Amino acid sequence: MSSTQFSYQQLASFSRQVFLAIGCPEADAETATRVLLSADLRGIDSHGIARLSGYIRLWEAGRVNARPDVQVIHETPSTAVVDGDRGLGLVVAPFAMQVAIDKARQVGTGWVSVQNSNHYGIAGWHAMMALQHDMIGISMTNASALVAPTFSTERMLGTNPIAVAIPAGTEPAFVADMATTTAANGKLEILQRKKQAAPPGWIQDADGHPTTDAHALKSGGALLPLGGDREHGSHKGYALGAIVDILSGVLSGASFGPWVPPFPAYVPMPTYMPGKGIGHFFGAMRIDAFRPAEDFKSNMDQWIRRFKSARPAAGEEKVLVPGDPERELEAERMQQGIPLLQPVVEDLQTLSQRFSIPLIIS
Amino acid sequence: MSSTQFSYQQLASFSRQVFLAIGCPEADAETATRVLLSADLRGIDSHGIARLSGYIRLWEAGRVNARPDVQVIHETPSTAVVDGDRGLGLVVAPFAMQVAIDKARQVGTGWVSVQNSNHYGIAGWHAMMALQHDMIGISMTNASALVAPTFSTERMLGTNPIAVAIPAGTEPAFVADMATTTAANGKLEILQRKKQAAPPGWIQDADGHPTTDAHALKSGGALLPLGGDREHGSHKGYALGAIVDILSGVLSGASFGPWVPPFPAYVPMPTYMPGKGIGHFFGAMRIDAFRPAEDFKSNMDQWIRRFKSARPAAGEEKVLVPGDPERELEAERMQQGIPLLQPVVEDLQTLSQRFSIPLIIS
Repeated sequence: MSSTQFSYQQLASFSRQVFLAIGCPEADAETATRVLLSADLRGIDSHGIARLSGYIRLWEAGRVNARPDVQVIHETPSTAVVDGDRGLGLVVAPFAMQVAIDKARQVGTGWVSVQNSNHYGIAGWHAMMALQHDMIGISMTNASALVAPTFSTERMLGTNPIAVAIPAGTEPAFVADMATTTAANGKLEILQRKKQAAPPGWIQDADGHPTTDAHALKSGGALLPLGGDREHGSHKGYALGAIVDILSGVLSGASFGPWVPPFPAYVPMPTYMPGKGIGHFFGAMRIDAFRPAEDFKSNMDQWIRRFKSARPAAGEEKVLVPGDPERELEAERMQQGIPLLQPVVEDLQTLSQRFSIPLIIS
Repeated sequence: MSSTQFSYQQLASFSRQVFLAIGCPEADAETATRVLLSADLRGIDSHGIARLSGYIRLWEAGRVNARPDVQVIHETPSTAVVDGDRGLGLVVAPFAMQVAIDKARQVGTGWVSVQNSNHYGIAGWHAMMALQHDMIGISMTNASALVAPTFSTERMLGTNPIAVAIPAGTEPAFVADMATTTAANGKLEILQRKKQAAPPGWIQDADGHPTTDAHALKSGGALLPLGGDREHGSHKGYALGAIVDILSGVLSGASFGPWVPPFPAYVPMPTYMPGKGIGHFFGAMRIDAFRPAEDFKSNMDQWIRRFKSARPAAGEEKVLVPGDPERELEAERMQQGIPLLQPVVEDLQTLSQRFSIPLIIS
């Protein structure tokens, strides 16, 4: 499929103007853009500017509030609940993560559960906010149900990602950012576009049988939890997705399980919802609340070097540390530009006309 | 393989007396016994009384201190580091979890990283300590290296379990307790004893090729991270195991990665260690630091009932909630007794003679 190359600056400028056009305050348009484009830079294309039109459709449907009054509605010294006031998750999440960081500065750690939000982009961005403060950052979110629990055919959980960012010294930080499914939905969408089969263990059909049909979700199928099937530990992936759902949804007073609002604006909202909107959960832990940050970071460097030098398997070049591929791609795309597939470009051109914002192709 | 049935009381009495015989204080012998036997009750037989002789051998080798001075060596309002003074993890871990609970009572959450400890039994027991306080409990530990990272043939991580216990209202609590590998080592040991092949995706051979030889670990093979291979998300299982290692080992000042001390006393200690002993990590979060506990627990009941009533796949009876099978077995074994395999009984008989403590078989 053909793609067009854009510079980061071109896409950032476009995205910022679109968010301003729907009424976002200047600072929010800037934040939302940075979060959104970090996905494109880091190669998680499904969560980047390809979703911009989706966010705008949610705004048109009245499901995203462009000028939310995001606030802490309950707190203790180390915890808070944030009400996102139906704002863009791209804006609500950094607000909440900042609350976690501020609390960690005061009492060692901060933990914030968020209700009444929307999709927040890539989990990793928010977790990585902690790094510059010599803190460990944690980020997770629930999402609309695409995943069947072990032994079930019913979609009960989202792909519910977990991200953990851990600072190091001279080595780059450890950044894990993963859906709690075998494969993220974005990877399945790529196979659908390329008309390729999905590897076994990614999805099941409507009867719960394994399938390699990448379109199975459209006929009642479901994504599988990390592990794939019971024999390979899918009950663990299911438990991880459930923990994310509970900390993000049940603990905050957001919706949860099969009742989480869908991302596509054309999918009707659930008729019943036990809570408000989508939920997130964030954590920040000050390293020196445990041991001197320099000692920790020096040990982290040692950890990272030792794992990178682990003996590679036959045919493999080297062992990676979580975050390596994304960081390398980020540096490359910041220099050389971000390739967008033709349907994404067309989507942006539609937005361009709609809001009279030029989309400059270099 | 033949097994012999023991009552909980018989095994508890025996275990307590053995711990007393090596010099543990009364309260510690009681705690260690409760933690150890909770594994037998909950069906995680590999971590129960089958390990008693292993702990005693560590004591004989001078690697377990029966009268440790376990103490907090650093703290903030929401965090602490505990030095286990080479005590039994079965005793050190509940001490540390109690510190986390006490801190949560004060400031909403408590987070405790532990150095200089030993194997702590099942992760779930410690997490479940939080339940009676209307708190969410989290427990994890590093362990000696048996697991190869994705793309590697080298054993770099333990089976590094994560447990999360979440209180509900009238429904039983949600309790996830999982190794971050496809299958726990204990399951592999069962296949070895039965001379059966391992399912594909559990282990690899010394060259990093998939194998179903349940004995592959003895010839340089390794357990695989949850996911099995890269295509099925093993990099996620690897990242989870790494996070457990870093929070338990690097954050506390314990040893980590390939340098974690081995459990079998006959395996020599690593010649180099970057920190002290095995590390653990615990968390406690007070529910009402986020929202009223009754509201949360009512929503948890709703969550649990909805997931239990999810449509079962063809041929499956019902969808389970994490903790269901273990809780059911616990009730059954407390009533009907705990079956021990013949080699375990012989092990206990050796201990019985050694310490002149009767092992009564009903």
